Amino acid sequence: MSNYPADVTVVEMLPRDGFQRLDAFVPTETKVELIDILSETGVDEIEITSFTHPEAVPTLRDADAVAARIERHDDVTYRGLVPNPVGMERAIEAGVDKVNSLVTVSETYSQHNQNMSVDEILAGVREIVELAEGTGIDVEAGIGTSFYCPYEGKIPMTDTLSVVDRVVDAGVDEVTLATTMGLADPVEIEEMYRAVFDRHPELKMGLHLHDTNGMSLANTLAAMQCGVDRFDTSHCGLGGGVVLPDGLDGVGNTPTEDLVQLLTRMGVETTADFDRVETVAHEIADRLELGAPSHVLMGGTVDRVLETVAKENP
Amino acid sequence: MSNYPADVTVVEMLPRDGFQRLDAFVPTETKVELIDILSETGVDEIEITSFTHPEAVPTLRDADAVAARIERHDDVTYRGLVPNPVGMERAIEAGVDKVNSLVTVSETYSQHNQNMSVDEILAGVREIVELAEGTGIDVEAGIGTSFYCPYEGKIPMTDTLSVVDRVVDAGVDEVTLATTMGLADPVEIEEMYRAVFDRHPELKMGLHLHDTNGMSLANTLAAMQCGVDRFDTSHCGLGGGVVLPDGLDGVGNTPTEDLVQLLTRMGVETTADFDRVETVAHEIADRLELGAPSHVLMGGTVDRVLETVAKENP
Repeated sequence: MSNYPADVTVVEMLPRDGFQRLDAFVPTETKVELIDILSETGVDEIEITSFTHPEAVPTLRDADAVAARIERHDDVTYRGLVPNPVGMERAIEAGVDKVNSLVTVSETYSQHNQNMSVDEILAGVREIVELAEGTGIDVEAGIGTSFYCPYEGKIPMTDTLSVVDRVVDAGVDEVTLATTMGLADPVEIEEMYRAVFDRHPELKMGLHLHDTNGMSLANTLAAMQCGVDRFDTSHCGLGGGVVLPDGLDGVGNTPTEDLVQLLTRMGVETTADFDRVETVAHEIADRLELGAPSHVLMGGTVDRVLETVAKENP
Repeated sequence: MSNYPADVTVVEMLPRDGFQRLDAFVPTETKVELIDILSETGVDEIEITSFTHPEAVPTLRDADAVAARIERHDDVTYRGLVPNPVGMERAIEAGVDKVNSLVTVSETYSQHNQNMSVDEILAGVREIVELAEGTGIDVEAGIGTSFYCPYEGKIPMTDTLSVVDRVVDAGVDEVTLATTMGLADPVEIEEMYRAVFDRHPELKMGLHLHDTNGMSLANTLAAMQCGVDRFDTSHCGLGGGVVLPDGLDGVGNTPTEDLVQLLTRMGVETTADFDRVETVAHEIADRLELGAPSHVLMGGTVDRVLETVAKENP
């Protein structure tokens, strides 16, 4: 039988990827309420916000207030995205458990998205690691455009590997590759992770999932077979920073409920409780009027389908 | 790297699974036109209809006329579903290249769906194999409810393996397991196919894909890793005989365009041409007013996404 990790860490991205994506500013109170609900699903880790300049990402301008007001559960890691050392200082002040130090491989994307060169961002990672020393805050590097870039198209694998090398050199021991465009396939995933593990066998590796091409659960399978045991997803799939074709308006991150259903059905352990995840997905979809943007929300679970059959065939 | 088949056979199910599912009878002329278009995608095999009693499946009551009128391409295998020896006689008369002799594992489903016991169906398979002798028609057995049944829930693996044994004993050398409910996960797929290949190492095995739980491309990956190299899908995902929850109205078979995109991106060879498959999926979605029920139709391909980005960022 295929070799899968015994257990997998699920990272909930809705409060950052999701609230960032929505056009309207979600009131701080609502953000805090929804993060508190997400804490109860059992997910290991929640990216609660981004400590970005308020003018750069106005929808997350209340980062500090959100961090201050949420209820902290002992068994949940609360992390914040930090684009630069200034963000790191705010994150320390806010008392997060962990930061996601954002890097991109594509020079063009980096300039568009963060108004910095890849070199400048990487210099920032080193400073962020230094700032973290002694604070007890873990530093992970999230690497955007690891596979495809909206401006540059397919990213050469050697470029991504080089950025991985450089964040490791900067002192990071946990790295997440992001399928920013949601266009990677299982062979690209496998080739990339095998190459990374060849160079850095002890590195803790995650995969940040988007689902533009519908392959994200297949990619999850391929990544787990390489030893990847941490996945970033978002309840209701809410998130995604890239402009997509009209029909893909509702497609963003991979829905947490679909990932947790996959893991649970496969017998891969996760602290996330599927029933709670499903309930919370319905609650959030209702509150944010998201419709049913996942297979679980549409009713695609064994229990829901059998209930329907029983009703239709009394 | 993972071991995938060098090439994969794609079987197009829309003319049978799809036209059967639609409430309204699709005129014979339209069926013929759409099958002719599907022949041009390069798919290896098309299930063109079902030779079932016209009163049992009125939407396919024109099976003989459809078989007579379609244009036959030399490199496409035209097959018909046959539920019993009477259907086989009609299929021979219609001059198909191959038949899909339908069996189910679940006794309850078999009674509901075919009004016969599993034993009666299996006796029919033996007769169908005998009728095929000397005609040049290949016989494949499609095994419904191989994993889950709408009435019985989870099907014990031993029951499915026993039915596989019995169709092999009846003289069938090509078997397709169907995820009738679309609820199987990659571990169930792998366990099942490893067990089948342990018992019948030379058996040609296929997987008939439905996508209720969103795991069908992950299941494709798992099956290919076991050596499965034939997959049944339907353009636009049109098909599916099981009553599903409301939100899943549009979810049926796995869309051929999503499967062919996966294979093409992974470098697994198929005779199907992705560009043609994509074009035809759009054409059929327009003609049958299906919306955009696949990731490819929503625009989830590298080309379509990059086009959009270029337009939005001139």
